[in-house]
Amino acid sequence: MFTLLKTEGRARRGTLTCAHGTAQTPVFMNVGTQGAIKGAVSAHDLKEIGCQIELSNTYHLHLRPGDKLVKEMGGLHSFMRWDGPILTDSGGFQVFSLAGLRKIKEEGVTFASHIDGRRIFMGPEESMQIQSNLGSDIAMAFDECVENPAPYDYVKQSCERTLRWLERCKVEHDRLNQLPDTVNPQQMLFGINQGGTFPDLRIWHMQKAAEIPCDGYAIGGLAVGEPTETMYEIIDAVEPYMPKDKPRYLMGVGTPSNIIEGVARGIDMFDCVMPARNARHGKLYTWEGTLNIKNEKYKNDSQPIDPTCDCPVCRSFSRAYLRHLFAAGEMLAMRLAVLHNLHFYNTLMVRIRDALDQGSFEDFRRVYSTKLSGRL
Amino acid sequence: MFTLLKTEGRARRGTLTCAHGTAQTPVFMNVGTQGAIKGAVSAHDLKEIGCQIELSNTYHLHLRPGDKLVKEMGGLHSFMRWDGPILTDSGGFQVFSLAGLRKIKEEGVTFASHIDGRRIFMGPEESMQIQSNLGSDIAMAFDECVENPAPYDYVKQSCERTLRWLERCKVEHDRLNQLPDTVNPQQMLFGINQGGTFPDLRIWHMQKAAEIPCDGYAIGGLAVGEPTETMYEIIDAVEPYMPKDKPRYLMGVGTPSNIIEGVARGIDMFDCVMPARNARHGKLYTWEGTLNIKNEKYKNDSQPIDPTCDCPVCRSFSRAYLRHLFAAGEMLAMRLAVLHNLHFYNTLMVRIRDALDQGSFEDFRRVYSTKLSGRL
Repeated sequence: MFTLLKTEGRARRGTLTCAHGTAQTPVFMNVGTQGAIKGAVSAHDLKEIGCQIELSNTYHLHLRPGDKLVKEMGGLHSFMRWDGPILTDSGGFQVFSLAGLRKIKEEGVTFASHIDGRRIFMGPEESMQIQSNLGSDIAMAFDECVENPAPYDYVKQSCERTLRWLERCKVEHDRLNQLPDTVNPQQMLFGINQGGTFPDLRIWHMQKAAEIPCDGYAIGGLAVGEPTETMYEIIDAVEPYMPKDKPRYLMGVGTPSNIIEGVARGIDMFDCVMPARNARHGKLYTWEGTLNIKNEKYKNDSQPIDPTCDCPVCRSFSRAYLRHLFAAGEMLAMRLAVLHNLHFYNTLMVRIRDALDQGSFEDFRRVYSTKLSGRL
Repeated sequence: MFTLLKTEGRARRGTLTCAHGTAQTPVFMNVGTQGAIKGAVSAHDLKEIGCQIELSNTYHLHLRPGDKLVKEMGGLHSFMRWDGPILTDSGGFQVFSLAGLRKIKEEGVTFASHIDGRRIFMGPEESMQIQSNLGSDIAMAFDECVENPAPYDYVKQSCERTLRWLERCKVEHDRLNQLPDTVNPQQMLFGINQGGTFPDLRIWHMQKAAEIPCDGYAIGGLAVGEPTETMYEIIDAVEPYMPKDKPRYLMGVGTPSNIIEGVARGIDMFDCVMPARNARHGKLYTWEGTLNIKNEKYKNDSQPIDPTCDCPVCRSFSRAYLRHLFAAGEMLAMRLAVLHNLHFYNTLMVRIRDALDQGSFEDFRRVYSTKLSGRL
């Protein structure tokens, strides 16, 4: 259940209560694709760095270890030992970006596993069944994530089909939640808005999707190569048509600046692999901008990554040590960098929420939306 | 300072007090070659898994990040954030096993860095200077680790030279500890016994080394390919000539069974990369023998690695989850496996010490020396 606590302009401060706890919004979800966070970070570590909602991938977990196995192990919460809220994506994005030899029909998609080439069919019902087996708190509707750019006619056909898929998802999701052996009978369902970069399709699709009673709505298919300004324009266009009393989730976004701008446009939930991926390449966030820890100039720098940060890494380790770990190819480099960057993102959300609570979000936005885009 | 608390047969229970704390012996030292433990394990994690002494490598740290840099950062304790005892090896083993194009003279060894081929000279004085810069609690004398098998005449010449090197190490070590800007002026020096698999050379060398007043003595050059029985015979031959009031360290050994047998032969200190390396390949220790977590049969096994183990991994995660992490290529697999195996080794030493305290070491040895060698 979503509760809107306060607004400042279009920005929203709220809470989202799931079967496994309440998240304060705006929230950044920490991505653990295969039931683990890249960089040797466990569910226990997520607690320590302020994660509220963990996000795992339906497509990946279906292929390996298999959602039926996860169900047998008591569901994903039990399997990966995370007792807070989990959101699972629908598998749609991976089917369209990772898998090979796709064939899309009205029923769903046949594709080849990126692991072993095995032919697999996934449609709305299958996606719901897999997510039900995983037992996540929030299931995402199965959608087609259209590539960018794509012709208007194709996008129109596709988002009409995605709408029909949402209807089927809803029916199947309701059925699964009623079954006696369902892992998480309080699982919620979020619909996903598509429509490429065409505002009219986006709006039409959002209006139609809003008629299907979901627990929240996401904007999908953005941050896939279009200019940042286009992304903001689409959010600006769609947002007025998103139910005010439901959480809004901007999928796969983004930089700290994108997140601040998303919040300013009425978004409540975010996820992105960027902080962890950047971490693994040595790009670290500070409140004064990013730094590349591999840089020679940090070799004898005894400061923490960010002297104002209180993450477990900054409380202990120096830039010099971290740089050494990267140079020496030590796995510990990855872990420490990922912990810091995810903590930074989670803390960014704390500061956004604090600013909203105090009615000073616009001031925060003015300072940090540009500052966090720059280099230290 | 070493204090012998109790003996049972030749097995010894004692304490070793260093500048950074007191270790209970027999002790297994946890290896952090480059100032970090392989498998994304930090110095903080070492505390949690019961590590008493951390071991780092002179050769590796000299090459990268450089011992002078480490000194500038306040020494290795400060650099890697480990406040307990640290032992640094002399670099000898790596010079003779990793580096290329070696040239051995009386002065020392010229070799090519395994990283960039750069020509480097290391002799007894250089090894002492590097270890002094690192500021470890225990420095190891610079020795030649002779390959196995090696001709008698070569081993004889080599261990005569290693003895002369020990004399030079002692002089240089004393000098360095007196310098006003020494990182750790209480650094101890251990001599290393060599002599290949020739008992007469081993004994001669040990008798001579014991005349040079060191803080402890190690047996080096074993577990380099010779049969286990030969290793035990050499320890049996040398041990009577090792000073009773000084700690004895068997370098690079070994399996749980090797350690139990080493303790039974009067050894106080051990180190080995095996538990961490095995972990990274999925070979995990339990009190009923080893298991390979990658095995298909663990795919839906909800038990911890060892149901009797209270390590941070066994307290939370199932075999099924760990197997999934290995199958999915997640870095977290390495971390959890390494934490478990190092905790197992540290706990093995606790149990050995408890048995010695209770006068039941022989019973412990009878049960576990064979049991821990087997598969679950």
